[in-house]
Amino acid sequence: MRPLHTLKNAPYAQSDAQLPTQPTEPEDMSTPNNSSSFPVVIINTGGTFNKIYQPLTGLLTVANDERTIEDLLHSAAPNLDLHLIGVVHKDSLDMTQDDRTSICETIRNLSPSLNAAPIIIIHGTDTMHETALFLDKAELNRVIIMTGAMRPAQIDPIEAALHLGMTLGFAAATPHPGIYIAMHGRVLPYNQYRKNRTIGIFQTK
Amino acid sequence: MRPLHTLKNAPYAQSDAQLPTQPTEPEDMSTPNNSSSFPVVIINTGGTFNKIYQPLTGLLTVANDERTIEDLLHSAAPNLDLHLIGVVHKDSLDMTQDDRTSICETIRNLSPSLNAAPIIIIHGTDTMHETALFLDKAELNRVIIMTGAMRPAQIDPIEAALHLGMTLGFAAATPHPGIYIAMHGRVLPYNQYRKNRTIGIFQTK
Amino acid sequence: MRPLHTLKNAPYAQSDAQLPTQPTEPEDMSTPNNSSSFPVVIINTGGTFNKIYQPLTGLLTVANDERTIEDLLHSAAPNLDLHLIGVVHKDSLDMTQDDRTSICETIRNLSPSLNAAPIIIIHGTDTMHETALFLDKAELNRVIIMTGAMRPAQIDPIEAALHLGMTLGFAAATPHPGIYIAMHGRVLPYNQYRKNRTIGIFQTK
Amino acid sequence: MRPLHTLKNAPYAQSDAQLPTQPTEPEDMSTPNNSSSFPVVIINTGGTFNKIYQPLTGLLTVANDERTIEDLLHSAAPNLDLHLIGVVHKDSLDMTQDDRTSICETIRNLSPSLNAAPIIIIHGTDTMHETALFLDKAELNRVIIMTGAMRPAQIDPIEAALHLGMTLGFAAATPHPGIYIAMHGRVLPYNQYRKNRTIGIFQTK
Repeated sequence: MRPLHTLKNAPYAQSDAQLPTQPTEPEDMSTPNNSSSFPVVIINTGGTFNKIYQPLTGLLTVANDERTIEDLLHSAAPNLDLHLIGVVHKDSLDMTQDDRTSICETIRNLSPSLNAAPIIIIHGTDTMHETALFLDKAELNRVIIMTGAMRPAQIDPIEAALHLGMTLGFAAATPHPGIYIAMHGRVLPYNQYRKNRTIGIFQTK
Repeated sequence: MRPLHTLKNAPYAQSDAQLPTQPTEPEDMSTPNNSSSFPVVIINTGGTFNKIYQPLTGLLTVANDERTIEDLLHSAAPNLDLHLIGVVHKDSLDMTQDDRTSICETIRNLSPSLNAAPIIIIHGTDTMHETALFLDKAELNRVIIMTGAMRPAQIDPIEAALHLGMTLGFAAATPHPGIYIAMHGRVLPYNQYRKNRTIGIFQTK
Repeated sequence: MRPLHTLKNAPYAQSDAQLPTQPTEPEDMSTPNNSSSFPVVIINTGGTFNKIYQPLTGLLTVANDERTIEDLLHSAAPNLDLHLIGVVHKDSLDMTQDDRTSICETIRNLSPSLNAAPIIIIHGTDTMHETALFLDKAELNRVIIMTGAMRPAQIDPIEAALHLGMTLGFAAATPHPGIYIAMHGRVLPYNQYRKNRTIGIFQTK
Repeated sequence: MRPLHTLKNAPYAQSDAQLPTQPTEPEDMSTPNNSSSFPVVIINTGGTFNKIYQPLTGLLTVANDERTIEDLLHSAAPNLDLHLIGVVHKDSLDMTQDDRTSICETIRNLSPSLNAAPIIIIHGTDTMHETALFLDKAELNRVIIMTGAMRPAQIDPIEAALHLGMTLGFAAATPHPGIYIAMHGRVLPYNQYRKNRTIGIFQTK
C-alpha cells in the first residue's frame, strides 16, 4: 500500500461557517454537505482492520498507530479536513468500559468548530455493537458511523477501503444524528444490523 | 485481487415491497434504507477504473467485462441485491452521445421493481461531467451516483474500492434524486464538483 | 494474487532423455540445464509461507493445499515441468520425525524419470535446519533446495516470490547434490546458513 | 509494495578476499558462493519491469530511478552487498547502441574489488537478446544474468520478484562467465532462450 506521509489539515475557522447546520427541506432525504471543505473526525480504536503481521512472533497484532487508515485515505486526503485520533489500539474483545468512556470523552472534547462534523469510528467487529450501545446511552447527539473489517487491511485492503469509503459516502449525505454501522455493503442504525458470527457477515435483524 | 466468482441476486418481488418509498420525516436529513434487502443498480461504462494491463501489447485497455467491480465488492456481495450491467466499456474520452443515450435507455428500461434503487455509474473521469449533464437533461428523477478512479483498480485497488464504497454509503442514506459525483473523499451534486485536470483531483467549484 | 487455475504437466518420457546427467567440464562452475523441458519437483510441507488468514477465527493457519505455490509460479508455469506434491501442511514447530520420514519417502519414491530433477522443499523457517539435517543423514544424493518465508505469501507475496525464484534460479545452474537453504538473498549449503531468531534473518555462520 | 528506504552496502575490502575465484573441483557442477558477504551488481536499464502508472496522463512510463528493484529486494537486502546502478531508464524498444555501450562501460569501470561479483541486468524483454549479443561481443568475461518482466512490478509484483529471485539464485551457484537470460521459470545462455512474441513467453530454441 502506498503510504500517506502527511495529512495536512486546513484551519477550521472559515469552513465551519459554511456547514449546513440548519437543514430546512421538508423531506426525509439528504442534501450533501457542499461546503468548500469537508471536516471529518475519524476515531481509531484498533480491531482487525488495523492488524499487522509480526514476523518475529508470527502473530497479527493491532498496530499502535493510525498508519493503516492514512494509507487507505491517500486518494481522499486532498478533499478531507481530516481529524484522525487514535484513542485505543485493541482487539475489540479486549475493549473495556473504560475504553468506551475514553471514546465518549474524546467525542465530547472535540473542538466546537467540529460540532457538525461526522464521526467515523474504526472498531473491531466482535464488540462493535456493545460500543454502539454505550455511545447511544451517552446521548452524544452526533452522527457516528462505525466500521471495521473481517480481514486486516494489510491482507485485504479492498474490504477495508470499501468499508471506509462507505462511511465517507454516508457521512457526505448529512444523515440524522445517530449511531450507524457501515459493514458488508450496507449502512444501518446499529440496532438494526448485527454480526452473524457463524458466517462472519453483518446482517439485518 | 480475490475474484468473486458468483454474484447471486435474490429475486426482487418481496424485497421491493419493503423499500422506504414514502419518506415522511420533516427534516432534510437521511434515513437509511433499512429494508431486508438493498437493491443497487451498478452501470459499468468502463474508464480508467476498469483498465487492465495487456502484456502482449504493453497497453492498458478497458476490460470488456464487469470483473473488476465484482472483485471490489466481494465483502459487500452477501448484503447487496446487485444488478450489475455493462453498457459500454470505453475510455471516457471515446464516449459518444450515442453511448450516453444507451446509458439513459438502460436506466429507463430497468424493471419497475427497481424504481427506488439507487443507480451507481462507473465512468471515466475526463468526461464524467458531460455524461452527468446529459443525464440531468434527461430528467430521469433517480438517485444517480457517478464514480471512477485516477488509477486502474488493477494498479491501485484502494482508490477504486474507496470510491465504490463511497457510492454505496451515500446510496444507503436515501439521498434526494439527483446526479452526484463520488470522488476523492466527497460526494456532491455533479454541478458543484469538477475535475481539476492540472492536479488530477476533483474539487468544489 | 492472480490464481493459476491449471498447472499442466507434460509427460516425462521424452524430456528426461535430454537431461544433462553426465556433466563433463573440468571446472567447478555450473552449466545451466538446457534441455527442452525443465523438470522440477516441489514438495510442500507448509510453514508461514503458506499461511492464510481465517476471518472467522482471526487466526493465520497453514493452508491445506498447494494454491499459494501455484499462484506464485504463474509466470514460470509455461516453462516448468512441475511436479508439485503436498506432503504435510504444518507450522514447522509442529513438524515431527514421522513428517520428516514422509518427506524422505516421497523423495525416494519419485519416478525414476525424475532422477535428475532438482527438489525444492517449502518449509517453515524455525525447523528448516532440523529437516535439512534429517535429509542429509538419509543420504539421498539429490539436489534439495529448501526455502520458506518470514511473512505469509498472502501478506507479502514479494518475499515469497523472491525466495521461490531463488530456488528455481539455483536449480537451473545444475548444482552439486546437497541440501541447500535459499533465504534472504542467498543460497548456501544448509550447514553454513542459519536463522538468527533474534532478528528473523538467515545468516552465514 | 513496502519500500526499502535504505540499502546500506558494506565496504568491500575484506569480503573480496574470501571469494571463490579459483574453483578446483573436477565436475561441471556449481559450488555456492559461501563467503561471509555476497557482492552483487545490479544494473538497471528500465523496461516494463520498472514501469509506473502516471495518473495525469494515463500512461505507464519507465521510472527514472531504482525504487522498484529496491522494493523487491527488501527481504534480501540484509544479506546482499548490493551495488545497484541505474544506467538508462528506457523502454527496451528505445534502447540504442550508445545505451548498450554505456552498459558495457559501466561493467568495465566497476571497482576491481567487484571482479568476481555476478552482474544482474534489468532490461526490457523486446530487445534483451540484442543487448545480450552486444555484451557477448564485448568479451567482458563476466557472469551476466539478464531479466525483465512482461508486466510492470507495480501491477504484478509476483512475476518481477520471481524473476529477480531467479537471478540471485543462479548467481549464488557460481556459474561460468557468460550471458544468461532468467525469465519465465528458467535461466539459460542467452542464445538458447528467446522471447516468443506471439505468446509473450521466453522459450528454448
